[in-house]
Amino acid sequence: MPSLSRYLPILDWGRRYDRDAFSNDLIAALIVTIMLIPQSLAYAMLAGLPPEAGIYASIAPILLYAIFGTSRALAVGPVAVVSLMTAAAIGQIVQTGTAGYAAAALTLALLSGLMLLALGLFRLGFIANFLSHPVIAGFITASGLLIATSQLKHILGIKAGGATLPEMVVSIIGHLGQINPVTLAIGVLTTAFLFWVRKGLKPMLRRLGLGPRMADILTKAGPVAAVVVTTGLTWGLGLNAHGVAIVGSVPQSLPPLTLPDLSPELIGQLLLPALLISIIGFVESVSVAQTLAAKKRQRISPDQELIGLGAANIGAAFTGGYPVTGGFARSVVNFDAGAETPAAGAFTAIGLGIAAIALTPLVYFLPDATLAATIIVAVLGLVDISILKKTWAYSRKDFAAVLVTIVLTLAAGVEIGVATGVILSIVMHLLHTSRPHIAEVGLVPGTEHFRNIHRHEVITHPDLLTLRIDESLYFVNARFLDDYIQDRLTRAPRIRNVVLMFSAVNSVDFSALESLEAINHLLKDRNIGLHLSEVKGPVMDRLKTAHFLSELNGQVFLSQYHAWQMLTRQNMERICPTGS
Amino acid sequence: MPSLSRYLPILDWGRRYDRDAFSNDLIAALIVTIMLIPQSLAYAMLAGLPPEAGIYASIAPILLYAIFGTSRALAVGPVAVVSLMTAAAIGQIVQTGTAGYAAAALTLALLSGLMLLALGLFRLGFIANFLSHPVIAGFITASGLLIATSQLKHILGIKAGGATLPEMVVSIIGHLGQINPVTLAIGVLTTAFLFWVRKGLKPMLRRLGLGPRMADILTKAGPVAAVVVTTGLTWGLGLNAHGVAIVGSVPQSLPPLTLPDLSPELIGQLLLPALLISIIGFVESVSVAQTLAAKKRQRISPDQELIGLGAANIGAAFTGGYPVTGGFARSVVNFDAGAETPAAGAFTAIGLGIAAIALTPLVYFLPDATLAATIIVAVLGLVDISILKKTWAYSRKDFAAVLVTIVLTLAAGVEIGVATGVILSIVMHLLHTSRPHIAEVGLVPGTEHFRNIHRHEVITHPDLLTLRIDESLYFVNARFLDDYIQDRLTRAPRIRNVVLMFSAVNSVDFSALESLEAINHLLKDRNIGLHLSEVKGPVMDRLKTAHFLSELNGQVFLSQYHAWQMLTRQNMERICPTGS
Repeated sequence: MPSLSRYLPILDWGRRYDRDAFSNDLIAALIVTIMLIPQSLAYAMLAGLPPEAGIYASIAPILLYAIFGTSRALAVGPVAVVSLMTAAAIGQIVQTGTAGYAAAALTLALLSGLMLLALGLFRLGFIANFLSHPVIAGFITASGLLIATSQLKHILGIKAGGATLPEMVVSIIGHLGQINPVTLAIGVLTTAFLFWVRKGLKPMLRRLGLGPRMADILTKAGPVAAVVVTTGLTWGLGLNAHGVAIVGSVPQSLPPLTLPDLSPELIGQLLLPALLISIIGFVESVSVAQTLAAKKRQRISPDQELIGLGAANIGAAFTGGYPVTGGFARSVVNFDAGAETPAAGAFTAIGLGIAAIALTPLVYFLPDATLAATIIVAVLGLVDISILKKTWAYSRKDFAAVLVTIVLTLAAGVEIGVATGVILSIVMHLLHTSRPHIAEVGLVPGTEHFRNIHRHEVITHPDLLTLRIDESLYFVNARFLDDYIQDRLTRAPRIRNVVLMFSAVNSVDFSALESLEAINHLLKDRNIGLHLSEVKGPVMDRLKTAHFLSELNGQVFLSQYHAWQMLTRQNMERICPTGS
Repeated sequence: MPSLSRYLPILDWGRRYDRDAFSNDLIAALIVTIMLIPQSLAYAMLAGLPPEAGIYASIAPILLYAIFGTSRALAVGPVAVVSLMTAAAIGQIVQTGTAGYAAAALTLALLSGLMLLALGLFRLGFIANFLSHPVIAGFITASGLLIATSQLKHILGIKAGGATLPEMVVSIIGHLGQINPVTLAIGVLTTAFLFWVRKGLKPMLRRLGLGPRMADILTKAGPVAAVVVTTGLTWGLGLNAHGVAIVGSVPQSLPPLTLPDLSPELIGQLLLPALLISIIGFVESVSVAQTLAAKKRQRISPDQELIGLGAANIGAAFTGGYPVTGGFARSVVNFDAGAETPAAGAFTAIGLGIAAIALTPLVYFLPDATLAATIIVAVLGLVDISILKKTWAYSRKDFAAVLVTIVLTLAAGVEIGVATGVILSIVMHLLHTSRPHIAEVGLVPGTEHFRNIHRHEVITHPDLLTLRIDESLYFVNARFLDDYIQDRLTRAPRIRNVVLMFSAVNSVDFSALESLEAINHLLKDRNIGLHLSEVKGPVMDRLKTAHFLSELNGQVFLSQYHAWQMLTRQNMERICPTGS
C-alpha cells in the first residue's frame, strides 16, 4: 500500500521496528523529557499562558507527529519564536491571564493546524521558499533579542510590558524603581550559571575524563539543575514571602479535552497571524528536519511534513496546548541522544504525561526568574549578528533584506518585519531583472566559445553585432530590450546583422514577444538582419506557436558559432581581434 | 546648455523653428481643434463634470506639455480611460454635480501631476514596466466596454447609475420604462451615422475621387457634423421640450484660475486613485508617443515625459480642468495631419481658447445623446477581444492575466482589475522561476556545443553528469536545486563528477549561495566532484567575494567543452552516444 504509507509514514518504519531501535529510542526519550520539563514551562510563560499549557502542548502533538511526520528525529512542541508570535497575536485581542486568552491560543493552534494541513494536501509547501535565507536569519536574530528583552522583567522582578523593543525598554526603565533584589539575585546567578554550563561545563567535564556523549548529556541537564536548586532555595528560605514570583500551583492532570473558541470575529482576527505562524513554524521545522535527515542520508517530504505539523497543531488545539512546531534545540538533542524513529517522540510524550501527573506539585516554588533565565540563555544562542557582515560582503541587496527585517521586527513586531522583508526581497529581485545585463560577445580564439568583449580577448566582426541577453525576457524588462537595441544601433551605424544570443533567456512571455516583434520590424525597416542563437528547447517551443519565427528577418541558429560562421563567411578578411 | 534643454526640450526644437514647420503645425492644429471640441465636451460628461471642464483641461495642459514634453506629436488632454477613472475615484467620495465634485477633480489632477513630476525627477519611469502588455490590453478592452455601457443611459434618455458592469446593466434594466423615444431616436441614429463614418465614409470618398488625406480629414470631422445637425434639429424642433437632455448654458470664458481642495481627508482618499491614474495615464501616453516617434526615427525620453505630463496635470488643476494625459486618438490625428513640433499643440490651445470664448453659446442645444454616441463609437474602437485568443495560443499564464484583468475591471472597477492583474502577473512569474527547467546536456557531435539529451542526438559519459540550470538562482528556487541534485544522484549512483553549466544563471543571491555550499558539502561527503562551467562575468565577480570558490570540490571551467575535455580525458573509451 504505497499510497497509504505516503500519508502514514508510521506504516513504513513501524513494520521494521526492532529491539535495538526500541532501546535507543527509549534512552533518547528520557534525555529529551528531562530537558523539556523546564523548557515547556518557560515557553508557556513566554506565550502568556499558564505553565501546564507548555507541557500539554508537548504530549498530543508529539504523538500525532510520530504518526504523520516523515522526519526520524524531529521533536515537536512549543518553541521560542512561535511562543513569542502567539503572545503577540493574542495579546492584541484578549487580556493576558484570562480564560479567553487560553481559548484564543487553542483557536490559533486549530487555525494554524488546518492551514498547514491544507497546504500539505494541496502540495503548496513551496510557498515557504518565498522566505529568503536573509529574511529568516534576520527574523530569528531579531526574535532572539525581542524574547530575551521580554524576559528581563522576570529577572528584575518588575511588572513591565510592551510588544516591541522600544516599548519594552521604555517600560523597563520606567519600572526600575520596583526592582526586587532577591529575584534579581536569583535571575542573574541562574543566567550566569546557565551561560557557564553552555560554554565552560562541557570542556571541564571532558578534562575530568568523561566521554563526549556523557559530557553532552550532563550539559543539557544544566537547566534541570538550575530548576532544582532555585526551587529548593525558594522553598527552604521562603523567598516567595520576599516578593519572588513563583510558578504556583499547576494542575495534576493529563492533557484535558479542550474546545477552541470558534467565534467568527476571533477567527477573522487570528487568520493572518495563524498563516504567518504556520509558515514560519514550517520553515523552522523543515530546516531542522532536513539538516538532521541529511546527516543520515535520509530524505524528508516537505508536503508530508506539513500534514504532520498540521495534525500536531490540531491535536494541540483540543488538548489544552497552543501552536507548536519542530524545535531546533529539542530535535538536535533527540538526534544526538540516538533517537532512531518517531517512537522516541511517543516515549517522550509518555514521560511528559507522567511528569504532568506526578511532578507538577514539585514546581510550585519554582521562581519565574529561573524560567526567564532558561529562555534568555536559549534564545541568545539564536542571535547571529554575523549574518549582517556576511551579506554585506556578498550583496548589498541581501544585506538590505536582513537589516530591514531585523529593524522592523524589533521596532514593529514579527509580522510586519517578516512581511516587509519578503516584499522587499521580491521587489529587489524584480528590479534587478528589470535592467538585464546585456553583453556584447565575440569569439574566444581557438575555440567555438563566445564571451563578453570587455572581459576577454575575443574576435569580433564590424558588420555583426552579437548581444548575449543575460535574463529571461518578460513584461518587467520587455521595454528595456527594445530601448537598448535602438540606442545601440544609433551608436553603430555600420551593422548589417544583429544576433541575439538566447543562451541565458529561459522564458519569453507575451509582452516580451511583442517587444521582439517590434525590434524585428524596426530592423527590417533599416535593412538589418535579426537572428537568434542557442534558443533553449522550451523557449523555442513557445516561439513556434507565435508567428514571430515566420516573420523573423533572419535565422535561428543552433549554436552561436554556427551563426558566426554563416554571417561572417562572406567577409572573413574583415574580421579583426579586439578586447582588453 | 545641454542640461537645461534636457528639462526644457522647447529650447531644442524652438531654436530651429522655421516657416515650413509653422504652416504644417498650423494646419494640424486646425484639424485637431475641430475634432477636440465635441470630444472634450463628451469626456467631461463621462467624468461627471460640466462640459466646459473638458475644454479647459485641453488648454493649459497642452501649452505646458509643449514646453516640457519630448514627443513632437503627442496631444495632451482629457481621454476616455482617465475620465472614467476620475468619475470612479471621485464618485465614491463626493456627490456628482456638486461644487465639491469639481474641486475634488482639481485635487485629483494636482496629486496626479505632483506624482508624475516626482516619478520623473527621481527617474522612476520604469515602474510603468510592471504593467504587462496583457494587463494593459485587458484593462483597455474592459474600460471600453465599461465606458460604452455607462453612456447607454444618455442614448436611452434615462437616469440609470452604477459603477461596475453588473450594476449598470441592472440599473438600466430597472429604468427601461422611462425611455425617452425622441432621445433614443437621436442617440441611435447618431451612433449609426458615426459608425458608418468610421467604416464606410472614407472608402466612399476615395471612390468619389478625393485624395487620401482629404478623405481622412473629412472622416475625422464626422462627429462635428453630427453635433451640428443634432444641435440644429433640437433647436429648430424644440426637442428639449420633449425631454431630450441638452448641454445647456456653458460659461463663455477662458480657463478660470482655480484652487484645488487641499483638505487632508480628501487628499488621503484620493492618493491611491491618483497614483493609478498617473501610472495608467503615463503608460497610455508613452505608448502613443513611442509609436509615433519611431515612425519618424525620433526618440522620446520616458522620464522627461513624466515631467511633461506632471506639468500638464498641475496646469489642469489650477485652470478648471481634471486629470489629463496624452490621448491615442487625438495624437494620431495630430501626427497624421502633419504636426512637426509641439507648437502645433500651442496653436490647438489657442483654437480651443477661441472656442471657449466664442463658440460655447452654440452648444446650448447640443443633446447629451450626441455626445454619448461620440464616446461609444470612440471607445468601442479600443475593445480588442482578439487579445484573449492571441494570449491563449501563446501562453496560458498571459491568457490568465488578460482574463482576470478584464473580468475584475468589469465586475469590480479599474483599480481592482489592474491591481489584481499586476499582482497575478508577478506571482505567476515568480512561481515559474521557483521550479527552474534543468536540462541534462551532452555534446553535439562534431561541435563544441552542448544540448539537452532528450531533444538532441548528443554524446554523454557515464561518470559525468552535466546539468544546465535554466534560471537565475535566488531564494525562491534555492531549495529546489538542492532537492533536485539529491534526487538525481540517488537515481544515478555511478556518477563521479557533476558539472553545473551556468550559461543561463544570470545571478546567484545569498540564499542560493548557501544552497550551493550545501550541495558542495554533500557531494564532497560522497566523494563526487562539483564543477561549474560558463559562469558569466557578473556572477563570477560575486562568487569570488564569497568563500565558495576556494571551498569548491572541483573547478570552474571557462567553457563546457573545456570541462568535458578535462573530466572525460582519463576515460575516453567509455564515452557512448545517446539521445533519441
